[in-house]
Amino acid sequence: MRSFSVNLGKRSYPIWIGTELVGCSEVYAPYLKKQVMVVTNETVAPLYLETVERALINWKPQSVILPDGEEYKTLEILESIFTALLTARFDRHCTLLALGGGVIGDITGFAAASYQRGVDFIQVPTTLLAQVDSSVGGKTGVNHRLGKNMIGAFHQPKLVVADILSLNTLDDRQFSAGLAEIIKIALVRDAPFFEWLEENLPKLQSRDPEVLTFAIERACRNKAEIVVEDERESGLRALLNLGHTFGHAIETGLGYGTWLHGEAVAAGIAMASDLSYRLGWMGKLEVDRVLSLLDRAGLPQRAPAKMTPKSFLDLMAVDKKISGGSIRFVLLQTIGQGLVTADVPSNLLQNTLETCRECEGLA
Amino acid sequence: MRSFSVNLGKRSYPIWIGTELVGCSEVYAPYLKKQVMVVTNETVAPLYLETVERALINWKPQSVILPDGEEYKTLEILESIFTALLTARFDRHCTLLALGGGVIGDITGFAAASYQRGVDFIQVPTTLLAQVDSSVGGKTGVNHRLGKNMIGAFHQPKLVVADILSLNTLDDRQFSAGLAEIIKIALVRDAPFFEWLEENLPKLQSRDPEVLTFAIERACRNKAEIVVEDERESGLRALLNLGHTFGHAIETGLGYGTWLHGEAVAAGIAMASDLSYRLGWMGKLEVDRVLSLLDRAGLPQRAPAKMTPKSFLDLMAVDKKISGGSIRFVLLQTIGQGLVTADVPSNLLQNTLETCRECEGLA
Repeated sequence: MRSFSVNLGKRSYPIWIGTELVGCSEVYAPYLKKQVMVVTNETVAPLYLETVERALINWKPQSVILPDGEEYKTLEILESIFTALLTARFDRHCTLLALGGGVIGDITGFAAASYQRGVDFIQVPTTLLAQVDSSVGGKTGVNHRLGKNMIGAFHQPKLVVADILSLNTLDDRQFSAGLAEIIKIALVRDAPFFEWLEENLPKLQSRDPEVLTFAIERACRNKAEIVVEDERESGLRALLNLGHTFGHAIETGLGYGTWLHGEAVAAGIAMASDLSYRLGWMGKLEVDRVLSLLDRAGLPQRAPAKMTPKSFLDLMAVDKKISGGSIRFVLLQTIGQGLVTADVPSNLLQNTLETCRECEGLA
Repeated sequence: MRSFSVNLGKRSYPIWIGTELVGCSEVYAPYLKKQVMVVTNETVAPLYLETVERALINWKPQSVILPDGEEYKTLEILESIFTALLTARFDRHCTLLALGGGVIGDITGFAAASYQRGVDFIQVPTTLLAQVDSSVGGKTGVNHRLGKNMIGAFHQPKLVVADILSLNTLDDRQFSAGLAEIIKIALVRDAPFFEWLEENLPKLQSRDPEVLTFAIERACRNKAEIVVEDERESGLRALLNLGHTFGHAIETGLGYGTWLHGEAVAAGIAMASDLSYRLGWMGKLEVDRVLSLLDRAGLPQRAPAKMTPKSFLDLMAVDKKISGGSIRFVLLQTIGQGLVTADVPSNLLQNTLETCRECEGLA
């Protein structure tokens, strides 16, 4: 069992990583207000809801079970959480507990940010993606049909509980999607971790608890360091969007839920690497290392054929990482060193968009 | 023309009060980002939208016109603002301008708080109620069918522009509703202002610009002082809810938009005065002065007959001023001195709820 703190002054919070934490009352107790609402989905509820409810028995927890999937990360589903809270007469002195993956964490966090103008929440991420990325850092929100994560708030949790055992119930596709965010964080700021991943990927994929704990802690610590320096994404934090400008376009273009977020990010990482190579930054061998690791991790290295260069450009223009009219890209100087730039010649971008697509026949 | 600052450190902002400010480019210019969206409603748009757009011409402003009324302060209407912003490809470097009354200010402020996790906004209140109360202090949000203002954020504007001339187009009922919030602020912390109101009400009602400017500035300064001491309503700020616990119950119970917010607050103030008298705090003569001023201001002094004691108790239990299971009331020690208490004997509350209702026959 490991724990460390995200140091944000009054908004600091601990992250616990280990086994059998989900059902551990002592871990939650110091962070619970008078009333507790567990927000989860129909996939996770049968697996862990009872365990969590037992751990919280003294708080007589309520629960709300949402449909599962990115396509339900909407204002409409958000409203159903408010309805549950109001029906159960929750006041401001309450805690929401997000039990599930990134979608549950994002929507529950935004519900906590907005309910009565702000109440507490706890993240209990049950997917690898949520454990290494979305549950840390306080970004919360929902999608709009015109763009992903366009509506939301910065709202830090009071506690993050990452139980490694919950990854055992994760299917391989979901697990791979989580690996995409681990690879991402290594690429933008931690070259030794990238090398470690190249070496330890098979053990990680066999879900060895020690190796998993190491990888999750390393990813979380990296992310926490960035968040501490730039809580509200005015600069540095944008690095965490490596692969996301392309990735969000893929998710929106295909319709939410067609590709998993991590899959779209993986294709986006490959595209960002390709563009970094065209700009003369990354070497060919480095790009190959990135593509090879994505491949071994069971992740796509190309955008779907359906995503034409034009559809990418249209969708990226409404993505929130636009600034001053030009699209800002997170690219790689080298493995372990990301950078943000709006200065990308359009012909190079066009080349990347044309090259990094699956063939039409394979669509 | 008067101006003063709400001192909230990095989130400080000026309030301008005067005539012909709505169309004054120089007032807005220092506070505008690259893209500007004016949010207004179908009542206000024909009166002032063109003037505002002319003042902002160098920013090529976009606009979105919402239906008018408290019943449209919903997540659904909020979403239509996001749709307008995304369709016009607004990025984070934008400013929303709320042109209208309290509903427009609240919903636009929450849209600004949530769009891409937070963008700038300016309040241009065109009703007396919004000028003296809702546009100052950063409370933003929308209603839920189970409770008023249950969903929202604290998000301070960058600028508040109160143009006295816009009050000339306000009908008497709306004007009276604004007076309710002025009377409220005087009652909780400014006895000399209450006496001034008793004396100057006729001039105020004739919309004498000098008298109006004085009253608006005095109300805003009082409110700003409270907000500076307690931005996120952990204590003192609750005083501003005098009349609101009862008032929200009336609004929700009748259906949003049946009574104006200020009318419901006026009845709530009368009820809080009655309860304060029953607790032995206010004298009978003081209560009469309150009721008399409300009466002269054209405001109700009783709840509608439809609101039974039981419906009040049910609705107040979901109101956000519940704390620790008991309802917290803002009451009056005397004129000019409010206080917050949860310690109200239920028989006295019952007496107030029974007494302060219109007769069934008048419903």
